[in-house]
Amino acid sequence: MTSVLEPLQRALVGVVGKERVLTDPGDRHVYGYDNSRKHHSPDAVVFALTEDEVRDIVAVCRAHKTPLIARGRGTGTAGAAVPVRGGVVLSLERMRRIITVDPDNRLMRVEPGVTNQEVQRAAAAHGFFWAPDPTSAAYCSVGGNIAVNSAGPRAVKYGTVRENTLGLRAVTGRGEAIRTGVDTTKGAVGYDLTRLLIGSEGTLAIITQATLKLTPQSTARRTLRAIYDDMHHAAAAVSRIMAQPVTPCALEFLDGAAIAMVPDFHKTLPAHTGALLLIEVDGPEAAMDEAVAAVSAAARGAGLLELAAATSAGEAQALWAVRKALSPALRTLAPNKLNEDVVVPVSRIPELVAGLAALSRRFGIPIVNFGHAGNGNIHVNMLYDSQNAQQERQARPCLSEVFDLVLRLDGTLSGEHGVGMEKRDYVARAIDAPTLALMRAIKAQFDPDAILNPDKLFPLIS
Amino acid sequence: MTSVLEPLQRALVGVVGKERVLTDPGDRHVYGYDNSRKHHSPDAVVFALTEDEVRDIVAVCRAHKTPLIARGRGTGTAGAAVPVRGGVVLSLERMRRIITVDPDNRLMRVEPGVTNQEVQRAAAAHGFFWAPDPTSAAYCSVGGNIAVNSAGPRAVKYGTVRENTLGLRAVTGRGEAIRTGVDTTKGAVGYDLTRLLIGSEGTLAIITQATLKLTPQSTARRTLRAIYDDMHHAAAAVSRIMAQPVTPCALEFLDGAAIAMVPDFHKTLPAHTGALLLIEVDGPEAAMDEAVAAVSAAARGAGLLELAAATSAGEAQALWAVRKALSPALRTLAPNKLNEDVVVPVSRIPELVAGLAALSRRFGIPIVNFGHAGNGNIHVNMLYDSQNAQQERQARPCLSEVFDLVLRLDGTLSGEHGVGMEKRDYVARAIDAPTLALMRAIKAQFDPDAILNPDKLFPLIS
Repeated sequence: MTSVLEPLQRALVGVVGKERVLTDPGDRHVYGYDNSRKHHSPDAVVFALTEDEVRDIVAVCRAHKTPLIARGRGTGTAGAAVPVRGGVVLSLERMRRIITVDPDNRLMRVEPGVTNQEVQRAAAAHGFFWAPDPTSAAYCSVGGNIAVNSAGPRAVKYGTVRENTLGLRAVTGRGEAIRTGVDTTKGAVGYDLTRLLIGSEGTLAIITQATLKLTPQSTARRTLRAIYDDMHHAAAAVSRIMAQPVTPCALEFLDGAAIAMVPDFHKTLPAHTGALLLIEVDGPEAAMDEAVAAVSAAARGAGLLELAAATSAGEAQALWAVRKALSPALRTLAPNKLNEDVVVPVSRIPELVAGLAALSRRFGIPIVNFGHAGNGNIHVNMLYDSQNAQQERQARPCLSEVFDLVLRLDGTLSGEHGVGMEKRDYVARAIDAPTLALMRAIKAQFDPDAILNPDKLFPLIS
Repeated sequence: MTSVLEPLQRALVGVVGKERVLTDPGDRHVYGYDNSRKHHSPDAVVFALTEDEVRDIVAVCRAHKTPLIARGRGTGTAGAAVPVRGGVVLSLERMRRIITVDPDNRLMRVEPGVTNQEVQRAAAAHGFFWAPDPTSAAYCSVGGNIAVNSAGPRAVKYGTVRENTLGLRAVTGRGEAIRTGVDTTKGAVGYDLTRLLIGSEGTLAIITQATLKLTPQSTARRTLRAIYDDMHHAAAAVSRIMAQPVTPCALEFLDGAAIAMVPDFHKTLPAHTGALLLIEVDGPEAAMDEAVAAVSAAARGAGLLELAAATSAGEAQALWAVRKALSPALRTLAPNKLNEDVVVPVSRIPELVAGLAALSRRFGIPIVNFGHAGNGNIHVNMLYDSQNAQQERQARPCLSEVFDLVLRLDGTLSGEHGVGMEKRDYVARAIDAPTLALMRAIKAQFDPDAILNPDKLFPLIS
């Protein structure tokens, strides 16, 4: 503990007590990273248990002009939780109460530190679920999901955090507790601050409570796998599937390079397999045959090598296992990787895929694509070896061209990972100057001293 | 035309030409009211055809420090389009192009003056619809729907404007064109200004274009009518229906007083009818029997007098005809009425109904209730005769108590009509002071000279 920190530390201890303030360098270190693999140690870590404590912690940081970075479980991939300028990391992981499960009104009220999986379990006990389902559901916090508007495969049918959150409680950078939204599924009184906070990555306010909108579970589900000779044919099938009335509850894809990443998997597939779609439909049992027939008809077309429907829950799980094995496989196989989650309108996926292939060839960087094709949300993984000087030099210029390509196709830079520090330098390409200026002006109203998560989401002003 | 107005008039003519500026008192008069029956004549009416013209009109009004009130088709019921402080009414009714219908990407791009019905027709040609469906669909503009987040019966299953709009173009009170949101169903880059503008009633910016999210039409639909002995039993049935997995695509109700409003209708009903539910389910044909069985099971219970499912499209239309006859009936039967669209969590509807009955008795004001029960969105109609001194004196105090009741039940003051001028005096009861102060601060960023729709949405500062 350096002497500079002592007044800040004392003030934090004054709010929450000694046991809930970490100042030891080793303890602080682990709160300095997230899944972006970026790292910067905070000057202190503090654990809040109540909204009043959050309010008092904001007041302390404001008085000390110290950055304050709210943190869930650190599973974000864009560096939004990394305290790049030091300051105080406010961990919300101990604010994890499920306050109400209210199936009659199809809502749950939770604290931000509860995990997505805990929410799903509590909802499932009443026959409901909360639509956002990031791959990290077992670990990620709902507060983090809200902060970056993170979704997952189900969003194609059931929407993202913005469509599934009714209201919030939060503490602004002014240290004021606010209450946004409603407890009802309709509301037309005042400005929608709920959605403004969703996706704001802790730069406007610190979420202390959320009212989540629940959806009834479907009674039946069918999983199909469609295999194509190349990505262009698979992408065309995605467009066809989304242009017909049966909306799948998941429409995932893997390109050939992604398939090759999963050990031994390609051996089980037809020769010349170039891409794979996982298609899931849900609804009442009586509608399943018709739904399977509708998506199957749309899946059929040029380049289809095989189309199979799982005939049991076990078979369906096996089909999904490949998709789920992919992220860990990528993690171990690639020495370095830039992992983006760009989005384009579904009909532009073929152009995106062609453009990515051209960039891969031009820059000599292998690119592996998979993701939530039904939303046009493609996880673009640029694999490179930082020991390879040529690749190391080309990775960032290649990324820059990927983003330009996405924007030319009327897409957006991120569908569910957010901006954080990873993408802030590219935001001005996606959002025009007057709109960005308004966002900064709004930020200044919530956080006049700019203490909340500085240097995130916005381009740095040089 | 007074001499004071001449420079303003000349400036507007400079932007759009003489033919698109109305200054004659008779011409201006008709742009001074909306469906709230409030009226105040504007000083000028101007018709824009392009976003550039909107921008230049804002610049003119800003230079002249003149109020600027955007107007769609004037069907709003809360007075949001009434130019209470004079100034310029900017009619968007001629900006009515459908720019794109893009079924592959499930979106439409439209100008604000297109009617809801025109949007529905263009979408239906491709097998889609836009979820918001106000009763005034044939006349109301999409820009107006967006400005007040107005929905309709379908919202219970398909959501409101906020869940069904991907992005906007708009001109702020600074006269700057901004572009919000994305062309995709996922997006996590920057603050969500799209939803901030939705429901802001023209106080932040003037919408010049909208990207609407389309939903596939269902192939089948079934309509049921359930009749109960009283509203409490009907309200309990609503809760049961919403707590089971099959979400109806409409769940409307009429109380006994509402039923009595429709001429001769009660004669066709069982004796002692006290309330009626219209329940509609949609989906694939194969799922209809199961869906009808599920909602029927939930509808059954104490107080059910009759449950019937329409066996043809004609029968279904006949069931709906009663609901649709109600608004016109109310208009002609009641000398005066206060028509509110409060919302409570579905499980609190029985308490709301009981509380409204008590207020009706206490104040001697007949109250007729009907509306979108599946969202807890109840149209509360206080009928009175302004020639009756006792009723005239009691109407506003009764309304005030209705709002207090709604807020005690965790509800909100409006589900789809918005605040306008009608409810601005009650907003501070629903939104706490720091949250309201933030909303005002945000308003000042978009509209620093406070020219956009002054004296709306916010409580007047005395």
